[in-house]
Amino acid sequence: MNNPTKPAVVLLSGGLDSATVLAMAKRQGYAVYAMSFNYGQRHVLELERARDIAQKAEVLQHTVVSFDLRAIGGSALTSAMEVPKDRPLDDPLGGIPVTYVPARNTIFLSFALAWAEVLGAQDIFIGVNALDYSGYPDCRPEYIRSYEAMANLATRAGVEGHHRLQIHTPLMQMNKAGIIREGMRLGVDYGQTSSCYDPAPDGRPCGHCDSCQLRARGFGEVGVPDPLYQRYGMTS
Amino acid sequence: MNNPTKPAVVLLSGGLDSATVLAMAKRQGYAVYAMSFNYGQRHVLELERARDIAQKAEVLQHTVVSFDLRAIGGSALTSAMEVPKDRPLDDPLGGIPVTYVPARNTIFLSFALAWAEVLGAQDIFIGVNALDYSGYPDCRPEYIRSYEAMANLATRAGVEGHHRLQIHTPLMQMNKAGIIREGMRLGVDYGQTSSCYDPAPDGRPCGHCDSCQLRARGFGEVGVPDPLYQRYGMTS
Repeated sequence: MNNPTKPAVVLLSGGLDSATVLAMAKRQGYAVYAMSFNYGQRHVLELERARDIAQKAEVLQHTVVSFDLRAIGGSALTSAMEVPKDRPLDDPLGGIPVTYVPARNTIFLSFALAWAEVLGAQDIFIGVNALDYSGYPDCRPEYIRSYEAMANLATRAGVEGHHRLQIHTPLMQMNKAGIIREGMRLGVDYGQTSSCYDPAPDGRPCGHCDSCQLRARGFGEVGVPDPLYQRYGMTS
Repeated sequence: MNNPTKPAVVLLSGGLDSATVLAMAKRQGYAVYAMSFNYGQRHVLELERARDIAQKAEVLQHTVVSFDLRAIGGSALTSAMEVPKDRPLDDPLGGIPVTYVPARNTIFLSFALAWAEVLGAQDIFIGVNALDYSGYPDCRPEYIRSYEAMANLATRAGVEGHHRLQIHTPLMQMNKAGIIREGMRLGVDYGQTSSCYDPAPDGRPCGHCDSCQLRARGFGEVGVPDPLYQRYGMTS
């Protein structure tokens, strides 16, 4: 597929997954509009990374939408609740982790939908993943399909019937190692990405939260050092 | 139905419709949490009205979420585009008016969904109306049903299956006169509400935008003067 003039909105958190998705959308020929969110996350540093990634990828526009989910609360990522460290990753009884942010992907996709409508874009990319984050309800394929159906009723395009909006989730069935391999093939600089839920002020990852652990396992399986660790002179 | 301890999130714009919905939810016995949005609308004055209405109704909490849809644009309500005046209301060829804000209800409902999840609420109320606003895609019943289906897959409750979230749209099939009659019966003070898309700095309605026209027609059909006009010493 090659769509040199086809616009797409790509949700870009500044993490490893969304940086890979951005590269995949570009490789498919989309004209990329990147969107990030400043929502009161404790790891707001990821926004600086998102800016670097968007700039390096030469996206057409990068919009950061700000709102404060701390007023709503309910998550370790937006409150004083502690981010769990060294939690076993594959605990089937673990349930939905406290780092789950209520309705976050629904909110993110809704802003992306608004922008897509204004841009006349039929395509939204989001880096959700059902394998590594099976604990988050809004990362499941059935949720995404349902969101897509709703989105096609929500907008001008839905009423006028002139195009169908698609939510692309190219990482849905990939594990972290597979994502990293694909990103390396596409030239993603993972040293620019930030995955940690609880980074130090200088951006150094904690190495112990779920997200750091998943990332480390991925690089371990691929058998290459994590360039982010190299950047900080850390051993992974 | 009487649910003295059952929480509900009520979307409150400060307009006539949502003030009526709030009164209806209270009458049904819900413990009301009101939510409003400061999104860059030119009629930001409605937020002061929302505060007054929430206070008078003694809601448990009133949260105002801020974000800037002007960065996304695409609507006369969030851009320098002019708000149409004296437009024929029943023009079947009019299509979707320029006052439509792309994906606005989807964004609003998504924040309500997040708050509902944190509160453990199963009920969200929104004052959409398929009759008077048939031009807005996100006011149609098929959209609301689809949103509800999505919402039930999006959240912790959806995964854990312990409750079903419902989107209540009590005004869906009512016309403006019917809404006003019901509100008067419930003691809503419509002098506290603001419907105008383009009010003067002192809050005086323009009287000519679609929203003012619909409101005037409603009060005309009911055969009572609009208390908002009385407040400003205007004739309706």
